[in-house]
Amino acid sequence: MTDPDVRAAIMRGTYEALCEHGYTELTAQDIADRTDKSKSLLFYHYDSKEDLLADFLEFLFERFDERVAETRDLSPVERLAVFVDWFLYGPEENDRQSFHVAMLELRTQAPYNEAFREKLRKGDDQLRAVLEEILRDGLAAGEFSEHDPEETAALLIAAFDGARIRQLTIGRDEYLEQVRTATATWVFDDLLAEGASFPADRDPSTLPETDQQHRLAADLGTEGGNGTGDPDDETNGADADGGDAAGDEPTERDRE
Amino acid sequence: MTDPDVRAAIMRGTYEALCEHGYTELTAQDIADRTDKSKSLLFYHYDSKEDLLADFLEFLFERFDERVAETRDLSPVERLAVFVDWFLYGPEENDRQSFHVAMLELRTQAPYNEAFREKLRKGDDQLRAVLEEILRDGLAAGEFSEHDPEETAALLIAAFDGARIRQLTIGRDEYLEQVRTATATWVFDDLLAEGASFPADRDPSTLPETDQQHRLAADLGTEGGNGTGDPDDETNGADADGGDAAGDEPTERDRE
Repeated sequence: MTDPDVRAAIMRGTYEALCEHGYTELTAQDIADRTDKSKSLLFYHYDSKEDLLADFLEFLFERFDERVAETRDLSPVERLAVFVDWFLYGPEENDRQSFHVAMLELRTQAPYNEAFREKLRKGDDQLRAVLEEILRDGLAAGEFSEHDPEETAALLIAAFDGARIRQLTIGRDEYLEQVRTATATWVFDDLLAEGASFPADRDPSTLPETDQQHRLAADLGTEGGNGTGDPDDETNGADADGGDAAGDEPTERDRE
Repeated sequence: MTDPDVRAAIMRGTYEALCEHGYTELTAQDIADRTDKSKSLLFYHYDSKEDLLADFLEFLFERFDERVAETRDLSPVERLAVFVDWFLYGPEENDRQSFHVAMLELRTQAPYNEAFREKLRKGDDQLRAVLEEILRDGLAAGEFSEHDPEETAALLIAAFDGARIRQLTIGRDEYLEQVRTATATWVFDDLLAEGASFPADRDPSTLPETDQQHRLAADLGTEGGNGTGDPDDETNGADADGGDAAGDEPTERDRE
């Protein structure tokens, strides 16, 4: 649609506005205020606020693709560990909490909004494809025991998404560690083939937090893709949906 | 607070208004319109719309307690099967779809709203307590193999909640069956002690749908409790959070 630099600036403004205002109360003016564009110039590039936010989801998916590409040299077991970390990063990552809350608000509007629903389905396709590829590659390499990659991917994505959403909405950080440990116990212990193991520095059951390189791309992966939270910062990713860190309560906001 | 009959009437009006308007756009007038009370009389009983909705959550938790009590005579294995059905009912249950969407909208406001957050935590306590009790009773009865009930409950609740939310927001019904089957494969097959099995009529991996008696109470269980969707109808329950059935797309609603 638009010059890539202009788009990147609008995407950055959108990210910042979502962090500050959440989704429900977001206005196009809030976004314009965080760029050097006027509100009317935003609507030169986008037909509507909805159109802009749909492109923002697309932008996150592109970032997620880039993150995934960076992991392609790792073994399937290592990639699986990175994938877990993408979702279940530690609650100390509070800097992006408000963004994740906003993304969850947006997701809940998808039943009413076809443009969002279509984008989120695309993200779901992307996310499942990545995890299924990891599982299939692991089967082919003999690292994983026989299983149905499609069903296993659905279970893992649902469990990680549910854990993030519950942690995010009610601020119960324990969901992250409990689901991490229970997944290792019930799924990964059986999934790993005889002789295979997670690398010591990436064991999902013990790693309290992902490494800086990957932590960003992940949670937004929840709704099927994710990218960098800060669109210009290659060392800091963000999310296309509801995950989040919760130790701190988000700012109270009266919406009644 | 209030005369039980008056409260029940307000709760029913709230349920109907949520079904019709969703949460984000709900007004106190919408609720009053579905009772024989005026809006000002609502505010005689409740300090605010938020206060009323917090009591609505409480009402759902009470209904969920009643549902749980009805299952207490079953064996732990049977109760576990019922619990699964409460969450992963079939997509054909579309009559309550709009209500589940509204509950999910409400949940996403919890990071901004302490009253909702506290209620949803209470619901989370309730839900986890029910599942942990089932798991502990099954351990004591020798029906389940050795495991950590707290972690296992967290995983199952997160997975079922995540499956419902993804099915609800993007309309992908396959999440329900895939997560049901994958849970049976990865968790229940190992959980069942030597010689124990799900009753044939309640095998979670094959049951496409729960029986009428229980299907209602369940999904809202997601956020920790749930009750009857239709407050007066003992044969039709509802939910305190985001689960839902999706075959049909909800009505498109332009909120831009």
